[in-house]
Amino acid sequence: MSAPAAPASSRLDRRMLDTAARAALRAWGDVEPNPMVGCVIGTPAGEIIGVGHHRRYGEAHAEVEALRACAAAGRNARGATAWVTLEPCNHTGKTPPCAHALIEAGVREVVYARPDPNPVSTGGDAALRAAGVLVRRSDASVLASRLAEPFAHAIETGRPWVVAKWAQTIDGRIATRTGESQWISCERSRAQVHRLRARVDAILTGIGTVIADDPRLTPRGVRRIRRTALRIVVDPHLRTPLESALVGTITQAPLLLFARDGVLAAQPAKADRLRAAGAEVIGLPDEDRGLDLARALADLRRDRGVSTVLVEAGPTLLGRLVAADLIDEAWVYVAPMLLGDDEAMPSVHGRTAPRLADARVFDLCLQRRIDRDALLVYRRAKPAAPLSGS
Amino acid sequence: MSAPAAPASSRLDRRMLDTAARAALRAWGDVEPNPMVGCVIGTPAGEIIGVGHHRRYGEAHAEVEALRACAAAGRNARGATAWVTLEPCNHTGKTPPCAHALIEAGVREVVYARPDPNPVSTGGDAALRAAGVLVRRSDASVLASRLAEPFAHAIETGRPWVVAKWAQTIDGRIATRTGESQWISCERSRAQVHRLRARVDAILTGIGTVIADDPRLTPRGVRRIRRTALRIVVDPHLRTPLESALVGTITQAPLLLFARDGVLAAQPAKADRLRAAGAEVIGLPDEDRGLDLARALADLRRDRGVSTVLVEAGPTLLGRLVAADLIDEAWVYVAPMLLGDDEAMPSVHGRTAPRLADARVFDLCLQRRIDRDALLVYRRAKPAAPLSGS
Repeated sequence: MSAPAAPASSRLDRRMLDTAARAALRAWGDVEPNPMVGCVIGTPAGEIIGVGHHRRYGEAHAEVEALRACAAAGRNARGATAWVTLEPCNHTGKTPPCAHALIEAGVREVVYARPDPNPVSTGGDAALRAAGVLVRRSDASVLASRLAEPFAHAIETGRPWVVAKWAQTIDGRIATRTGESQWISCERSRAQVHRLRARVDAILTGIGTVIADDPRLTPRGVRRIRRTALRIVVDPHLRTPLESALVGTITQAPLLLFARDGVLAAQPAKADRLRAAGAEVIGLPDEDRGLDLARALADLRRDRGVSTVLVEAGPTLLGRLVAADLIDEAWVYVAPMLLGDDEAMPSVHGRTAPRLADARVFDLCLQRRIDRDALLVYRRAKPAAPLSGS
Repeated sequence: MSAPAAPASSRLDRRMLDTAARAALRAWGDVEPNPMVGCVIGTPAGEIIGVGHHRRYGEAHAEVEALRACAAAGRNARGATAWVTLEPCNHTGKTPPCAHALIEAGVREVVYARPDPNPVSTGGDAALRAAGVLVRRSDASVLASRLAEPFAHAIETGRPWVVAKWAQTIDGRIATRTGESQWISCERSRAQVHRLRARVDAILTGIGTVIADDPRLTPRGVRRIRRTALRIVVDPHLRTPLESALVGTITQAPLLLFARDGVLAAQPAKADRLRAAGAEVIGLPDEDRGLDLARALADLRRDRGVSTVLVEAGPTLLGRLVAADLIDEAWVYVAPMLLGDDEAMPSVHGRTAPRLADARVFDLCLQRRIDRDALLVYRRAKPAAPLSGS
């Protein structure tokens, strides 16, 4: 009934690449727009000699950090294997190429989980082979293989990585029929969301949520704010109140409102008042289907270097993002309660999906208990990428 | 931020009681109406000498099985500690009292997770103490403490343990707006449901599901059918078709239909035809709110010895069971898809819950990945039971 056991080499690859990926994840929010990368240097028998990860944008890459860790432990990487979550770079940017550092150190074999999607830095595989290093690609660790997905996605689509977060009941409701939603998720889940807010470049919400919940969308109770997120409201008719908490906290984090061009033209004073209060107001073309969110997201990346967007929105904006297939990742906090009320507010709405084939399909990437809640982390489902010839 | 570390003794208790509980769970479907019970005999330092569990109704209890395991391994239980999920019985029924067996074996200490709720067999704690055995109760293992809940529930309420199972999308839908539901959950999840069917005494569904899906509700592809479940349809107006799969498979598993008294009186021929086909048809009093399901469940236990009922029903019957607070446990298979369609069929409906305080609250007991699905197992939330004086 169960899957056949993986061969020993694949099990070793998975263990080492998982370790590398977990190290890399510690830098989420510190390295973007670079990818998170982790590296484990070990013996072919599986002893770990050094672990390193890319810690901060502009600083040393994971391979160099791992080699430093070897040296710090008084160990030599000569003849060792390096497991890296991403193909070592072959590019002198802010740091010298990692392929070169591995060759210099005398590493015998390099195993990597994902090819470098960046046309600027690619070529590490070939450079290593040319120097006589054994090179393999391994998909043994799903975590390692998917780690650079946000980075690859930005290169492929020109858009930031969009992470939707919501808290719902078991039966998929984010508020009761009267709009009560505080609090569905438990305290520890909400604290985790604050930590998410401190790692992303932008937080996106809809005007419905602003009017219903008057949120601040600032990270609170977080030990270290890795980056200050731009708070963005999709607000076609420019209804964000001047006395809203978002406007009131504008000195803590910037605020951007996306409105319809037509609305701005018709009611310039409204925008002026919000601008005077410190908000930025940007018009988007009037469209039948609402604002063009794909274009707005691409603009955010191109003009402001936004790598990651956290969506904390109600069912309408979420539904529009789902409909446009703009959700790359979803963090769903499931609270252990059932409403069973058809009039309660669904987590996502506005679509017409007569067949199961019309559903948006995701991959379950992580499942965790957060006190009384279940956290389910999904990413957009992709066809399994075939291993390249290596 | 994190909870203080448990003391060493509590960690040992948890490990041993978890092991005992996991052993006990293997007999689900074989021991009812007895409780599942597991026992680990080990040294105070934590070495396991023997593990046993109650395997089958009428056969040896867990403590005796664990003592036998010690003997089979050539080990002596004298001076050892016994960790038992349930207070050892003090009752000569189909087997002699377990308290006596532990005293005879020279066990020095007994740690149990839950007092015996059965007035007939209780008194093991006192009997052990009287013989000079150290006795403690421990709530270190949630699994062990909750293991006998179905058994205690039956004694307290007179009703069987009701396990609701459903498969839903992330956003809580069990079918599209056109009724398409095959298949939301993955193949491995569905195989697990077949194994559940082979462990329970009854499977309950509603007439809506019978008409929409025409299910058989028999276990298929299961290695060992532990008990043949009575299939029950809540069918107030006796609309179950004679040509339904349920009626067609009546030689494989019995079929019981609950209808309104008034309907049976008005249309006796309908019931006669179903009875001639082998179904049992039982009338329930006409009530404003639909059939009295609490009473029907109590009757099933009293008249037919039904210990566990699996509910595989649509939103209407599920909603009525939730409204009546008759769901003791829920197995929710969450498939990684979003419909985002307000007209899709919700997992539970029919309630009016204006406040979050109106939600039915559960405890998340188990969280598991089943291929692409997430399985969330809940039990009705209970106020934490205070530890008794022992």
